[in-house]
Amino acid sequence: MVEPATDTKSAAKVVPLLKDELDIVIPTIRNLDFLEMWRPFFEPYHLIIVQDGDPSKTIRVPDGFDYELYNRNDINKILGPKASCISFKDSACRCFGYMVSKKKYIFTIDDDCFVAKDPSGKAINALEQHIKNILSPSTPFFFNTLYDPYREGADFVRGYPFSLREGVPTAVSHGLWLNIPDYDAPTQLVKPLERNTRYVDAVLTIPKGTLFPMCGMNLCFDRELIGPAMYFGLMGDGQPIGRYDDMWAGWCTKVICDHLGLGVKTGLPYIYHSKASNPFVNLKKEYKGIFWQEEIIPFFQAASLSKECTTVQKCYIELSKQVKEKLGKVDPYFDKLADAMVTWIEAWDELNPTGASSAKVANGKA
Amino acid sequence: MVEPATDTKSAAKVVPLLKDELDIVIPTIRNLDFLEMWRPFFEPYHLIIVQDGDPSKTIRVPDGFDYELYNRNDINKILGPKASCISFKDSACRCFGYMVSKKKYIFTIDDDCFVAKDPSGKAINALEQHIKNILSPSTPFFFNTLYDPYREGADFVRGYPFSLREGVPTAVSHGLWLNIPDYDAPTQLVKPLERNTRYVDAVLTIPKGTLFPMCGMNLCFDRELIGPAMYFGLMGDGQPIGRYDDMWAGWCTKVICDHLGLGVKTGLPYIYHSKASNPFVNLKKEYKGIFWQEEIIPFFQAASLSKECTTVQKCYIELSKQVKEKLGKVDPYFDKLADAMVTWIEAWDELNPTGASSAKVANGKA
Repeated sequence: MVEPATDTKSAAKVVPLLKDELDIVIPTIRNLDFLEMWRPFFEPYHLIIVQDGDPSKTIRVPDGFDYELYNRNDINKILGPKASCISFKDSACRCFGYMVSKKKYIFTIDDDCFVAKDPSGKAINALEQHIKNILSPSTPFFFNTLYDPYREGADFVRGYPFSLREGVPTAVSHGLWLNIPDYDAPTQLVKPLERNTRYVDAVLTIPKGTLFPMCGMNLCFDRELIGPAMYFGLMGDGQPIGRYDDMWAGWCTKVICDHLGLGVKTGLPYIYHSKASNPFVNLKKEYKGIFWQEEIIPFFQAASLSKECTTVQKCYIELSKQVKEKLGKVDPYFDKLADAMVTWIEAWDELNPTGASSAKVANGKA
Repeated sequence: MVEPATDTKSAAKVVPLLKDELDIVIPTIRNLDFLEMWRPFFEPYHLIIVQDGDPSKTIRVPDGFDYELYNRNDINKILGPKASCISFKDSACRCFGYMVSKKKYIFTIDDDCFVAKDPSGKAINALEQHIKNILSPSTPFFFNTLYDPYREGADFVRGYPFSLREGVPTAVSHGLWLNIPDYDAPTQLVKPLERNTRYVDAVLTIPKGTLFPMCGMNLCFDRELIGPAMYFGLMGDGQPIGRYDDMWAGWCTKVICDHLGLGVKTGLPYIYHSKASNPFVNLKKEYKGIFWQEEIIPFFQAASLSKECTTVQKCYIELSKQVKEKLGKVDPYFDKLADAMVTWIEAWDELNPTGASSAKVANGKA
């Protein structure tokens, strides 16, 4: 049995790293009482709340938090016709928050995620660990058997090429979940009682050329390095699919990181995921995705970007063309999605006019 | 501070898995007193001891162990002129043990490795964990963020393609080390006091296309699936290099596993590595390797085997040709090594005449 931290107020004094360079993005349809437990860790930061569903509803945010909140009316007003690329009635709408942020880093978390405890019982400051992950390099070109060589007490093992020990900039830090694991509907149905109780004290780089299932529940990234690739696609209202928003972003992001020589880390930190979503509802949202991913994944595994793709935006536009050409055959949905990918980049560049400078390519090996 | 288990006799009753299908191979130059601590775990198994150095010396093995022992005279007698492929005065000689074994599985361990404790203080039965790793499939084609999906309490996460959930046969299980980490001489010199105290409770598949530094200290593999690739090269006496024996085997093995659709796992189990070897001696052995690996690794990363390579032996012979052609330019040593690779396969097939049947290709995806 694993339990959330119930007393975070007495947590050791928190030094808020990157306080003025990071926004916390939260998609929600309810009052944000879950922030109470996160207060010692999140209060110093600015929040961007993306309200999904009925815009006339009022979302209550606990006192003392510094935030801006956008509902559907705001999104429509800000993006005009380009608002069509932002999903409605699906947590995929969170990516609007990435677009309006003016900070270098984004941390995004779901509102059913609480503070987890490490094996010693200490409340885990997830954000601090993400920041450590993202401020230290990644090692995508060769595997280090002692995991992240930049962590305290670790290093590169014998046989690790010295030329690769500088690493590459880390663009993404993917955190995990104790208690309710992030399972698909079929697995939820088959194993309704399974809980994740295993605390794995590791961070590791996902090797170049390897795709992974990126979950948006507990995720941090460098907006300047990879932001425009973090599009969560078309899901929810009016779409034939849901629950593949973060997966889509993860596949696109990983292909682009590999091309640009950027790193993706996974592992610590854990959050406590409190509630399994309804597997029957999930199955309805997912079932097309379950078929489609059998074609989508080989597509992304084979995807290759041209040398001319020197910015995230250029990579993303090129990828959208390949989606249209290759996945359009699978279902007309992918035609629509490919168009939305282009709209997303247009909207991103409109809201981030200095985007040209934020699209510098890391000096990595592609 | 991390310490070895000091009382393994009272360990819970051990059920010796695969008792008649696994040999434990130990290279040594000294009395095998270290086996006392391993007694509850190793005593039911057969040991193959490869005595390095002076063959006139007598190696004492604690009572009660079932073993066969080979010294250099034995190796010369058994292999005749082909004994030239077996290193002398280097623990690389251990691969002779792989060749003379008649079992399906091999576990190899160094004689300065003791029983480690898990975070609860329990003595770790390393062999049992290796066997669990190797009897459950691997997942080289897509990364699972909750690590080995076949472990109890874990599964494939949302977004993992269902078509890949069957996995592929596991050929190699690479275990880790608490206390003295497996560092190269420069790192040993720079961080003489660093100890590995982090117990990472994970097993994971090294993705297809990713190389890793395979350490021979605590290693298990399926001889039938991959044995002929586990050649530890020419090291030690009369050779310009040492301490790259296991690395060489690891690079060759990984390329061949990727080609044949076999899996390589790393992580648990830990052993307690008691003593750092002398970094000055190590530097002398390693320094050419430190240069050479900068060319060797790109070579292996780019290596591709033809469709005709349907057995490990055929893969290995093809690889030896590529070594001669591409690495021969780096140093004449690689010409000699390429020849020794061929001799190794000839010797393997001579000692394993039914090898044809053991060289079946796994029904995996290459």
